[in-house]
Amino acid sequence: LHRVDRRQRQMCIRDSIYLSLDPANRGWMSGQKSYVDAMQTGDTMRGGTIGIIEESKNEKFKKGEIVNCMGGWQQYCVSDGKGVRQIPQGTGFPLDCYMSILGMTGLTAYFGLIDITDPQPGETLVVSAASGAVGSTVGQIGKIYGCKVIGVAGTNEKCEFTKSELGFDECINYKDDDFKDQLKSACPDGVDIYWENVGGITFDTVMPLLNDYARIPVCGLISLYNATSMPGGEKDRLPLLFRQVLTKRMMIKGFIVFNHYDQREESIIALSNWIKEGKIKYKEDFVDGLENAPNAFIGLLNGKNFGKLVVRVNPDPTI
Amino acid sequence: LHRVDRRQRQMCIRDSIYLSLDPANRGWMSGQKSYVDAMQTGDTMRGGTIGIIEESKNEKFKKGEIVNCMGGWQQYCVSDGKGVRQIPQGTGFPLDCYMSILGMTGLTAYFGLIDITDPQPGETLVVSAASGAVGSTVGQIGKIYGCKVIGVAGTNEKCEFTKSELGFDECINYKDDDFKDQLKSACPDGVDIYWENVGGITFDTVMPLLNDYARIPVCGLISLYNATSMPGGEKDRLPLLFRQVLTKRMMIKGFIVFNHYDQREESIIALSNWIKEGKIKYKEDFVDGLENAPNAFIGLLNGKNFGKLVVRVNPDPTI
Repeated sequence: LHRVDRRQRQMCIRDSIYLSLDPANRGWMSGQKSYVDAMQTGDTMRGGTIGIIEESKNEKFKKGEIVNCMGGWQQYCVSDGKGVRQIPQGTGFPLDCYMSILGMTGLTAYFGLIDITDPQPGETLVVSAASGAVGSTVGQIGKIYGCKVIGVAGTNEKCEFTKSELGFDECINYKDDDFKDQLKSACPDGVDIYWENVGGITFDTVMPLLNDYARIPVCGLISLYNATSMPGGEKDRLPLLFRQVLTKRMMIKGFIVFNHYDQREESIIALSNWIKEGKIKYKEDFVDGLENAPNAFIGLLNGKNFGKLVVRVNPDPTI
Repeated sequence: LHRVDRRQRQMCIRDSIYLSLDPANRGWMSGQKSYVDAMQTGDTMRGGTIGIIEESKNEKFKKGEIVNCMGGWQQYCVSDGKGVRQIPQGTGFPLDCYMSILGMTGLTAYFGLIDITDPQPGETLVVSAASGAVGSTVGQIGKIYGCKVIGVAGTNEKCEFTKSELGFDECINYKDDDFKDQLKSACPDGVDIYWENVGGITFDTVMPLLNDYARIPVCGLISLYNATSMPGGEKDRLPLLFRQVLTKRMMIKGFIVFNHYDQREESIIALSNWIKEGKIKYKEDFVDGLENAPNAFIGLLNGKNFGKLVVRVNPDPTI
């Protein structure tokens, strides 16, 4: 872990309270060109944080303000203020909400489902990684919009949670031997929207069930992130996919929440109201201490977490 | 060929003037479920036609009116009026225009490029089947919108035509040995929009050139239509495609013009104006006599046509 020398400070120094662990972090470590610069060996690990401003020479930020930014896996960071946002106070929501349902993952679910897929009442929505931070929110918004919501998750406990606690119509364990049959039975009218968080076997199983005009927001591909070579059988299915895209008039669209922060206020208002009305629940999975972040992150990629994974770096800051 | 018994008539009988031959017709013959019912052996071949109403019991249509519909590969057809549209008279455009630039292919290009891709000045647009009815119109609309337009076609004559006559910035023959190098050189800033008419080698070559936020309207896949099994190498590139879709935030969207006839009037007005202003040219490839339709259609699938392929079934009807 990397402790920034305070003499290097430019605009403000913050004391990390929470650190967000997200599957997308893995992609940044792959060395491949992506939507952000590839990290290099020796760099401080990137990550979203909530912290308190300890000192500021930036007129937009004052000492003691609580802010969200890409503070990284460290106790302190220095920033020029770019990408730093104040967290609203007095909302009645605990601070950790801004790492999950009212933060990046909530906005991802909100924007991605509503704007990209335009969900209609009666449509069938299949959500992969259904008990995760994004998937659980996507499914609940889908229910609010009148969809039939089928989750896919990796343990029976997670499946049960999405049904009994979150109101999913069905949730299927992709590790079951008869996963394909179960998913097909759960979608007798086919699949209109497939929320892609994972890739791999889940997409393969959904693919033949897709209806005309199916929409596939590609939010994540966690099953591929640790792959050192591309998985898949001997047959190239790319032409088959394109034939489906054409004849079924499907849409496949990748997106990254960073491009949609202009919808942040709108999503926070909507999600806050739904939480107050009891229509949306959220679950967090806390890990204490920055020193436990690496193991927790490895667990996240293997589905060990249950809910939004957040590291309590310094949960009781001295303010 | 199938001559409908006039005693079976329901609403109106038309005398075919023109028959449109389109790559999509091949898909209807595949026996596979698609956006229209699969044709069965022995059915009259489907196809778009222009004809004259010879007799009508339908109050919306009068004898002598010239109409466009799916009349099929025959001299006469019977219709209940569904999907039949009057062709406007006195526009100054010859009737065959309503088989091409002011018909289905023009609307396909207009709607698909403008609505699906939202082309921006300075963007690089690659158009496959560039000298064809749809591709040639897509490229010219792209130029009107300020794009750099690179065509891909199958003969040097077609390439030369799109550059010298249609104003494409470049056009490359995909049969050249160094096609990949030529296309890469022609797109030094990558590819923002790829108009997919063909699949196969052209998509394979464009795929690594795609930029962030690339849009791929999937209009046709002519290279696959005659395939009895799916082509492609031993490696499944589907995961690779999804990784690109995610990290580059790309959109892939299939569409069929039949879903967008509500934009027909708008597209006819816009395209008519561009033709009058000299900004859009169109090329037709006529075949005389219905008996020559089968060979012409086989040629179309092999790229033998040069421009929109239209059969003159009865070009001088007795009116």
